[in-house]
Amino acid sequence: MSSVVTMGEIMLRLSPPLYHKIEQTNNYSSTYGGGEANVAIALSHLGRNTCFISKLPANQLGDGAIVHLRGYGVNTENIARAGENIGIYFLENGFGTRASQVIYNRKHSAITDIDESEFDFDKIFKDVEWFHISGITLALGENVRRVALIAMKKAKEHNVKVSFDFNYRSKLWSIEEAKEAMQEIMPMVDVCFGSYFDANVLLEIEPSKEYDNDEDKRMDVFNQLIDKYGVKYVFGTKRELFSANENSLWSYAYTKDAVYRTESTRFNIFDRVGGGDAFVSGVIHKLLDDYEDFKFANEFGLACSILKHTIPGDASILREKEITKFMSNLGSEIVR
Amino acid sequence: MSSVVTMGEIMLRLSPPLYHKIEQTNNYSSTYGGGEANVAIALSHLGRNTCFISKLPANQLGDGAIVHLRGYGVNTENIARAGENIGIYFLENGFGTRASQVIYNRKHSAITDIDESEFDFDKIFKDVEWFHISGITLALGENVRRVALIAMKKAKEHNVKVSFDFNYRSKLWSIEEAKEAMQEIMPMVDVCFGSYFDANVLLEIEPSKEYDNDEDKRMDVFNQLIDKYGVKYVFGTKRELFSANENSLWSYAYTKDAVYRTESTRFNIFDRVGGGDAFVSGVIHKLLDDYEDFKFANEFGLACSILKHTIPGDASILREKEITKFMSNLGSEIVR
Amino acid sequence: MSSVVTMGEIMLRLSPPLYHKIEQTNNYSSTYGGGEANVAIALSHLGRNTCFISKLPANQLGDGAIVHLRGYGVNTENIARAGENIGIYFLENGFGTRASQVIYNRKHSAITDIDESEFDFDKIFKDVEWFHISGITLALGENVRRVALIAMKKAKEHNVKVSFDFNYRSKLWSIEEAKEAMQEIMPMVDVCFGSYFDANVLLEIEPSKEYDNDEDKRMDVFNQLIDKYGVKYVFGTKRELFSANENSLWSYAYTKDAVYRTESTRFNIFDRVGGGDAFVSGVIHKLLDDYEDFKFANEFGLACSILKHTIPGDASILREKEITKFMSNLGSEIVR
Amino acid sequence: MSSVVTMGEIMLRLSPPLYHKIEQTNNYSSTYGGGEANVAIALSHLGRNTCFISKLPANQLGDGAIVHLRGYGVNTENIARAGENIGIYFLENGFGTRASQVIYNRKHSAITDIDESEFDFDKIFKDVEWFHISGITLALGENVRRVALIAMKKAKEHNVKVSFDFNYRSKLWSIEEAKEAMQEIMPMVDVCFGSYFDANVLLEIEPSKEYDNDEDKRMDVFNQLIDKYGVKYVFGTKRELFSANENSLWSYAYTKDAVYRTESTRFNIFDRVGGGDAFVSGVIHKLLDDYEDFKFANEFGLACSILKHTIPGDASILREKEITKFMSNLGSEIVR
Amino acid sequence: MSSVVTMGEIMLRLSPPLYHKIEQTNNYSSTYGGGEANVAIALSHLGRNTCFISKLPANQLGDGAIVHLRGYGVNTENIARAGENIGIYFLENGFGTRASQVIYNRKHSAITDIDESEFDFDKIFKDVEWFHISGITLALGENVRRVALIAMKKAKEHNVKVSFDFNYRSKLWSIEEAKEAMQEIMPMVDVCFGSYFDANVLLEIEPSKEYDNDEDKRMDVFNQLIDKYGVKYVFGTKRELFSANENSLWSYAYTKDAVYRTESTRFNIFDRVGGGDAFVSGVIHKLLDDYEDFKFANEFGLACSILKHTIPGDASILREKEITKFMSNLGSEIVR
Amino acid sequence: MSSVVTMGEIMLRLSPPLYHKIEQTNNYSSTYGGGEANVAIALSHLGRNTCFISKLPANQLGDGAIVHLRGYGVNTENIARAGENIGIYFLENGFGTRASQVIYNRKHSAITDIDESEFDFDKIFKDVEWFHISGITLALGENVRRVALIAMKKAKEHNVKVSFDFNYRSKLWSIEEAKEAMQEIMPMVDVCFGSYFDANVLLEIEPSKEYDNDEDKRMDVFNQLIDKYGVKYVFGTKRELFSANENSLWSYAYTKDAVYRTESTRFNIFDRVGGGDAFVSGVIHKLLDDYEDFKFANEFGLACSILKHTIPGDASILREKEITKFMSNLGSEIVR
Repeated sequence: MSSVVTMGEIMLRLSPPLYHKIEQTNNYSSTYGGGEANVAIALSHLGRNTCFISKLPANQLGDGAIVHLRGYGVNTENIARAGENIGIYFLENGFGTRASQVIYNRKHSAITDIDESEFDFDKIFKDVEWFHISGITLALGENVRRVALIAMKKAKEHNVKVSFDFNYRSKLWSIEEAKEAMQEIMPMVDVCFGSYFDANVLLEIEPSKEYDNDEDKRMDVFNQLIDKYGVKYVFGTKRELFSANENSLWSYAYTKDAVYRTESTRFNIFDRVGGGDAFVSGVIHKLLDDYEDFKFANEFGLACSILKHTIPGDASILREKEITKFMSNLGSEIVR
Repeated sequence: MSSVVTMGEIMLRLSPPLYHKIEQTNNYSSTYGGGEANVAIALSHLGRNTCFISKLPANQLGDGAIVHLRGYGVNTENIARAGENIGIYFLENGFGTRASQVIYNRKHSAITDIDESEFDFDKIFKDVEWFHISGITLALGENVRRVALIAMKKAKEHNVKVSFDFNYRSKLWSIEEAKEAMQEIMPMVDVCFGSYFDANVLLEIEPSKEYDNDEDKRMDVFNQLIDKYGVKYVFGTKRELFSANENSLWSYAYTKDAVYRTESTRFNIFDRVGGGDAFVSGVIHKLLDDYEDFKFANEFGLACSILKHTIPGDASILREKEITKFMSNLGSEIVR
Repeated sequence: MSSVVTMGEIMLRLSPPLYHKIEQTNNYSSTYGGGEANVAIALSHLGRNTCFISKLPANQLGDGAIVHLRGYGVNTENIARAGENIGIYFLENGFGTRASQVIYNRKHSAITDIDESEFDFDKIFKDVEWFHISGITLALGENVRRVALIAMKKAKEHNVKVSFDFNYRSKLWSIEEAKEAMQEIMPMVDVCFGSYFDANVLLEIEPSKEYDNDEDKRMDVFNQLIDKYGVKYVFGTKRELFSANENSLWSYAYTKDAVYRTESTRFNIFDRVGGGDAFVSGVIHKLLDDYEDFKFANEFGLACSILKHTIPGDASILREKEITKFMSNLGSEIVR
Repeated sequence: MSSVVTMGEIMLRLSPPLYHKIEQTNNYSSTYGGGEANVAIALSHLGRNTCFISKLPANQLGDGAIVHLRGYGVNTENIARAGENIGIYFLENGFGTRASQVIYNRKHSAITDIDESEFDFDKIFKDVEWFHISGITLALGENVRRVALIAMKKAKEHNVKVSFDFNYRSKLWSIEEAKEAMQEIMPMVDVCFGSYFDANVLLEIEPSKEYDNDEDKRMDVFNQLIDKYGVKYVFGTKRELFSANENSLWSYAYTKDAVYRTESTRFNIFDRVGGGDAFVSGVIHKLLDDYEDFKFANEFGLACSILKHTIPGDASILREKEITKFMSNLGSEIVR
Repeated sequence: MSSVVTMGEIMLRLSPPLYHKIEQTNNYSSTYGGGEANVAIALSHLGRNTCFISKLPANQLGDGAIVHLRGYGVNTENIARAGENIGIYFLENGFGTRASQVIYNRKHSAITDIDESEFDFDKIFKDVEWFHISGITLALGENVRRVALIAMKKAKEHNVKVSFDFNYRSKLWSIEEAKEAMQEIMPMVDVCFGSYFDANVLLEIEPSKEYDNDEDKRMDVFNQLIDKYGVKYVFGTKRELFSANENSLWSYAYTKDAVYRTESTRFNIFDRVGGGDAFVSGVIHKLLDDYEDFKFANEFGLACSILKHTIPGDASILREKEITKFMSNLGSEIVR
Repeated sequence: MSSVVTMGEIMLRLSPPLYHKIEQTNNYSSTYGGGEANVAIALSHLGRNTCFISKLPANQLGDGAIVHLRGYGVNTENIARAGENIGIYFLENGFGTRASQVIYNRKHSAITDIDESEFDFDKIFKDVEWFHISGITLALGENVRRVALIAMKKAKEHNVKVSFDFNYRSKLWSIEEAKEAMQEIMPMVDVCFGSYFDANVLLEIEPSKEYDNDEDKRMDVFNQLIDKYGVKYVFGTKRELFSANENSLWSYAYTKDAVYRTESTRFNIFDRVGGGDAFVSGVIHKLLDDYEDFKFANEFGLACSILKHTIPGDASILREKEITKFMSNLGSEIVR
């Protein structure tokens, strides 16, 4: 039995050493990552039983991804194995005034041929508490979209809570495509992670009047979203950029007629990727503890996210005590 | 003006350190390689002006391949830049009793959308002496096949010598597909690199009678090939395997009613990939010096190939004097 | 349910790069290894459900060993977590005329405080088919010896087959200590892996008469061993050393009044450690398929062992098809 | 035809990993660099045809420098090949409160024996638009100085614009030597890159009266410089140091009776070397677009320089769109 | 003759690359470190003859520590060689909001069996000027404590100045144990490095009245300490933490009725370990120059400590001129 | 007091990783080496007190060489520190059919300005037993030659045994230059290491009659050498090359009217450099034990040399017991 199931693509991630550019390197650090896989790994480190639904080629690269997931405690029994290419992304780490860049080599990857016949969703969702998926997965083409929809429906049938992270990527699909897919799945979503842009542009929810500040406008639109789709919570983070190595973050949690916003924290970045997924995992972890305590979930999620920026690789592999310690401001002195 | 033009795909090559398996690594050495690119680089190091026709995505990975080729002296002006994926291959280096393994991640790569409108072949082949292409390129799909055929025709129009290396790869296409494509291009070929299998199975040439040894059978079939397609020479190598690190090679050169075979040499292997391409480049280099002296071309090609097995990466980057020195048996004592 | 359970210590293994000596390095490659852990990993790659019983400190180094085992498919739920030190061994890889050297830093490691109260052996051995342990584990001190004995007894109660690999290490205990421990556990052993030395010196079995060759002497002694302790099979390998990088191996399987010996194979070595464990895992794997077919088990075990010498790290991570292919002599040519 | 020609020494650059000191390392990262080579590479990445005049030993180290330059798009046909030593510099990267240190191993390097007979300057400068050289090259001894002077004269004969970067290095020559050489070449310079120190001490231009601020004093002295030598522009940067990893920069452009100064920008540093060369290349690139628009050239040069500090190695390999994006403040968020 | 002798444990230090966690790595950077060894190395780089008393196993790991110390100029003739384990510590480098973590694997290391019979203290302390030891050494068990006490007594007999750094580590011993040991050795100490906590909790000195600020309270307690134990100076540093990469430090020096406090300096951190040892070494170095000038010793010690945070490894390997230059604020511009 | 003094240049040695060529690398492994330094290090590991006379620049590269020597137990007090360049050599490691190549970047290095005033030879040679120098040192120019001669004279005055290794390098000087220098120093030599070529060509000793085999010819010429110059022994090795990775060696020792030749041993090579120096060090070590037992010295020297080929870096760092074990044929099985 897994308490949390996620579904998506896990890619091979390749980065030149430190802050080198691809033109300069003859060497890549490798790891594996992808939004929902990152959430599964993070939750596994927070003590949850997790399972990841995906598809990988039946070769050594697929095996490598399995070793990675399994090593970090994720159940990999529901990863179909077939197809030719593994999705790959290259990450040129930015520094200071130079932004990081992601180059995708994932088109036509194995998951794009996924089929519902490859999974026994009734078995997968039996006794599960939570299912998480993101907009990136919906963007991977018709097959993936269809199977994702089936998975969400099956999750609902089994009374599994469903969370959805919009995560719109313009490199993967157009706004028109995204709109249609996202509006189709929203009625099945219990908890969503998104921004004003997601609500306004992708879900086409307009503010009911003119506002002179972002906060009120967001409140209006998120409340409509909550009403229209029967969503329990909308979570999200706001990032301010000082340089590629230094950002600040604060986060919000909206529920019917209530909102909770954290303070903003400024911090150093070693690995920017997966900051959002860490937030998602922290929120889910705490909602699993207490589904009503969205405030603590929001605080905990933000702490996960901030600390994730110090961890190499896509996923947070932090333990709960490290996060709690950080939240208590016990600081950055060497532990010995 | 380039003296030699080649055409094909150049891929990013990724290998785990030393003899590690992909499951074990979090690091890859990277270089770029591909049959015809390897031939161009080797010929550039032997002092020829070379030009490589290809297509690469217009991103940093494409740029990296350009830096690689240009650094090694290959003209890259005729590489079209568009598309999403760069072809990638992963190489798990074998050791001793364990064979090396290549895992392709090249399906749907940029070159598969190549189009003749992207090249000015009349300009490319002006004053060129030699054009080389291999069966791997023909295997990359309809678009590549069509453009390759056009290129060969244009080369012939410009009186450019055309060489062809069968290099049949069962992972890329079926024998049926290969047969058709290869029989179509053979009439344009002046010099080919191939084996009995290539002549017999792919070109469907049967020995005219039964033989009790391979040599006579090969002679019969290659003579038919030479006659039927108006080919000047058939070159090839025969490899014996003692382990992943130790092989022996000898090579042959057939021309109308004549054959020249080298002795067999046993040698150590550091990097097995590109051994055949090095043979091709050595043969072409010497035929460019003297088109009639197929014996020396054969000897020189074999020396290139044997030495290539000591060079990391796909391509020979040996200078002529290193090869000549090796041929004179001046040996392996440290030079200082 | 696990089909195979093993028990022992897993250590952090640290090696200077390539063939450097410890005095020369400021960098270590790291992995984790230990006889029974290696057997579990190898069997997991051959498709068996495996479980490893051990004890590790409750810190990041223990976590790292868990990630390693779990990533390679071994169930780690029965690894107790407490204590201060992880066992460590340093490996200076030998080359040619210079032998490899192992330096232990394992004294007083966490497992030496192991206690039977940390395990629920009835649950562990429920529905299990095989239990494997080695003499190295018995050498780790009184606590480990006591718990090992309990584990073996519990295994027998659950009708689990028990295999034992003598693996006497003079750096860990004296012959006197080893004798006592080994003679105590032998009655519980179904299949043992050992040499003439093990039978003669450790089990104190003398040949019944004088022989002028090793084979007959071994046959005599092993037959006595089989009779005395009710052992089904005695397996073992014989190694001949040409250099640190080149050895040959053949293996034997003795059962009541029968023996099967393989041919000797000479091969190159990249990583010598774990060659014996790979033999054990291959034998167990095939005996699990067919407990009577000791001949094939012996052949398969030898193939595993020989191929393991090409794999970096302690454990074989070879798949069955790679081993079968090697056994069919399909050779060392690059696969592409 | 090259649009820009530069001349100088290219050295092998060796750095211990990250922030290690030479005493601590057994490993060096290597690249190649030198002021005018850096300018050529940067301009090549901005789309200019570039050619680099130099001299390198006819060995593998010289070949390596050629591969580097050619890979990055610089024409290397006018690099003479002879001599024994390649110039080398070691870079200990500083961190925070500890400054970076350069240790030269370049004395008596191949270029110090350069001779005008090794170059056909009429051919080199045919149809060229710009020639750039720096004071470092003049400091490399009599032979280099003589050939540099000849090159500048030839450039002027061919109506090529000449730019000069003072770049006085006290480790390479005395102020007395520098004065003489610089005053000799100044009449041939169209655009110079320098500071008040360069004008005042090296060119011996005194302010015409006392000033109570640096700006006015600089204006006075630069105006005299412009008048005396017929220079069109004087460009330069002013750096403020917060730590080895954090500086700020602003830049100026003086022309007859006008000055344009940028704002100061504070930024993080990954690789400090070549910051000045990147400024030079940005200025030249924009002056080649529009020789009158010194304001934009100054802004663009500063952006190049700031971004260069994030690029490992001596040279900027940034594309125009990256620089333009940075100038539009589009920020440091990850691009994906 | 050595001018400074120190005594303690030197451990192998292993760190994952950059900011990776142990779970993620298959590679460790290695060096050797330990408080008193760090002081000896730092003093050796400041020009002092130094000798380090310790015990290491008689294997390659012990040899490696010897190579390290000897290479950095420390006399290693008084390091006993016996025992099984070398002490090891693992360092996970923190970043930004994530603190560094030290994991010890040193329990039962060779030094815990140290015996006074292994050293000729009369010979060791002949003509020596200074002996330094820390509370970490006292924490290593009864044997080490006994030998340390003997060493201190012998030092006093030879009129050697004795300095002591409290350095209480709760992971190594309890406050009760520490109290007893420290109060026993204090009468032999001339110069001590400690905090209010050390004086108040470990030496059980209570402030004579209530104070409303830390400074006065510290002054009171340190004055009592000085009186009670006949100590000449109490030195110490105060650290403020902004992140794992950025701290500030100021330092103090108390002597009978006088105190000297430095300004606080904020700085970047590359390697936090050994910051305190660098302070100690700077203070000792300057007190050896002039035992009365505690002000300059304090300033110099702080400069050593701040700069140390930029040096990889445990020990400062800075030369006096680098420290002096930093103290003169000559800054962080690249030196070339 | 040192028992052995050697004199020569120690260079920074830089090698691309594994078998890469310089054109391909952006990374170098570094160590330090040079004939006489290698002999000093090897002898230090065999338990001798050693001292190395040399000159190095007073910068970090010189410091690095000092750390290397001192770490390996060589006294560095007689290394003068001044000058600009450190001698550097680049080593491209050969593999199989491809020979290793050394590229020197040592011309005009610091040692070429050595002066006798920088050394106190009476102090250096006080109570010393052996002085060793090679022809490479004599080849480094007039200053080095002059100081070397003075050193040899001083050694003789102090009754120090003098050994000389011809080691003629055509890249460093002509045969004419070498002849003169070598004939001048030979009268001071007690033990020399050389070949027939050295005796015949450099010392101009002709065989007294025609021989039909090399052995007799060598005997004749070496006997003349021994007579003419009062040399006690001529030692040497003969190498047969199978590939860059596999050679065989045997060695000889000639003394007045006697010769002792070893068997030939075939072995694998990881690092070819310093094989001759290891032979020298082994011979000297055993002659220091017993000056008459040239047979055992010869055997021991050969064992050192063969084993050295397995050690990365220039110098043997083998302990006596490892060599003795190898000589007893105790083999290459892993030690654990």
